[in-house]
Amino acid sequence: MTPSPHLILGASRSGKSTHAESLVTSLSPPYVYIATARILDPEMRDRVRLHRERRSSHWETLEAPVALLPALRTLQGAGKPVLLDCLTLWLTNLLLEPSTTPPEQTVDELCSFLAVADYPLFVVSNEVGAGIVPENALARRFRDLAGLANQRVAASCAAVTLVVAGIPLRLK
Amino acid sequence: MTPSPHLILGASRSGKSTHAESLVTSLSPPYVYIATARILDPEMRDRVRLHRERRSSHWETLEAPVALLPALRTLQGAGKPVLLDCLTLWLTNLLLEPSTTPPEQTVDELCSFLAVADYPLFVVSNEVGAGIVPENALARRFRDLAGLANQRVAASCAAVTLVVAGIPLRLK
Amino acid sequence: MTPSPHLILGASRSGKSTHAESLVTSLSPPYVYIATARILDPEMRDRVRLHRERRSSHWETLEAPVALLPALRTLQGAGKPVLLDCLTLWLTNLLLEPSTTPPEQTVDELCSFLAVADYPLFVVSNEVGAGIVPENALARRFRDLAGLANQRVAASCAAVTLVVAGIPLRLK
Repeated sequence: MTPSPHLILGASRSGKSTHAESLVTSLSPPYVYIATARILDPEMRDRVRLHRERRSSHWETLEAPVALLPALRTLQGAGKPVLLDCLTLWLTNLLLEPSTTPPEQTVDELCSFLAVADYPLFVVSNEVGAGIVPENALARRFRDLAGLANQRVAASCAAVTLVVAGIPLRLK
Repeated sequence: MTPSPHLILGASRSGKSTHAESLVTSLSPPYVYIATARILDPEMRDRVRLHRERRSSHWETLEAPVALLPALRTLQGAGKPVLLDCLTLWLTNLLLEPSTTPPEQTVDELCSFLAVADYPLFVVSNEVGAGIVPENALARRFRDLAGLANQRVAASCAAVTLVVAGIPLRLK
Repeated sequence: MTPSPHLILGASRSGKSTHAESLVTSLSPPYVYIATARILDPEMRDRVRLHRERRSSHWETLEAPVALLPALRTLQGAGKPVLLDCLTLWLTNLLLEPSTTPPEQTVDELCSFLAVADYPLFVVSNEVGAGIVPENALARRFRDLAGLANQRVAASCAAVTLVVAGIPLRLK
């Protein structure tokens, strides 16, 4: 039995989504894919299309660019393995969306949910903090939020894996 | 007995300072915090305040934005556990400070001190080289210096830990 | 017997080239160094000079900024240990070179060669995807290509090592 929730971390193009999908599909179908990408430009559309083509008909897709918690909650009791891809795009959407709730609080609500999720849940997230400090203030704000979210989600998960060049390294 | 000196590396917001503090406070107080941050803007002031609030009254703080070696030397013989946070901010200050000594030489002097330090010493540093090559020449110079310093300090330490999303991975 | 081919990954200034050289020189000379750097500015010239000075007279150097595959093929049958430094500079050159073959296809040809190489081959590559998404489209294109190439080459290698602050962490 694979531990859950499971955070799969990695740099851009590290193979983290492919690895997370292989963890999900080692379980029995049907599977749920929660997409947090908001398609704003052709580059993003191509990226999403490639991800979709890789997945088979065993997958159902939920779009949750901002309302992630409600989407996760509707899946309680169904027992389907769920892939959330990815945390960092969701955080970007939270930062850009006008809201009275600070994103950090929404991250804490996600962590509270992770503690009670009753289905196998795999969360993909990006490592974004290992470059030079960005000159742009919004990029710094995002980098801080993403790093904090990765720490909190990692603490709330039963398993954490870092993917480097397609190779998984189990951290927890 | 925890090995010392110990280098704690991680990306921005990886949880490296929190982890390093937990290593220090597993030893007996009082503790010494060597702060290398130079407070130049409100963003930095908030960051320093948050770090300070997390620490208890068992901590004494030394400010050493540039004169790090003298600060480290004054602590010889006292046996107090010391947290140096962080190496990368000190390197930034060295680069910006007019001096006749090249920063690389000052890093070598730090490494010579690490070999003789007689107290438990924990050094926090940032990983800054895993993004795209920066367009700005000073950022490239800093990135080269920080990478080199991390290598040399790691070689001079008895223990090295990489922190990813708050999870320590012992490298040495 | 050291496994081969071996991919040595790391951030900028992580000590990956030095570690790869130590793997090569644990074998018997003579050695071959395949340089993919194209010397376009004084900064690069200094970097190449430093790398060269570190190597002894046991090394022969082949320049292969673009035509890497032909260079690798001429070495078949000679049994000399080969250091390819580095994959990422070669990818940069491929991206900037007008060609009818997409770089991804050339990467696949490299991977096919890795499967049949009959000499000890050590490939150095940069991790470039762990920072913030670059604002520049060419930088994003490069980052995607480099991440993909690292994944594919890692899959084609018998061994993969991540170098952090000069310390090797064997991933495969």
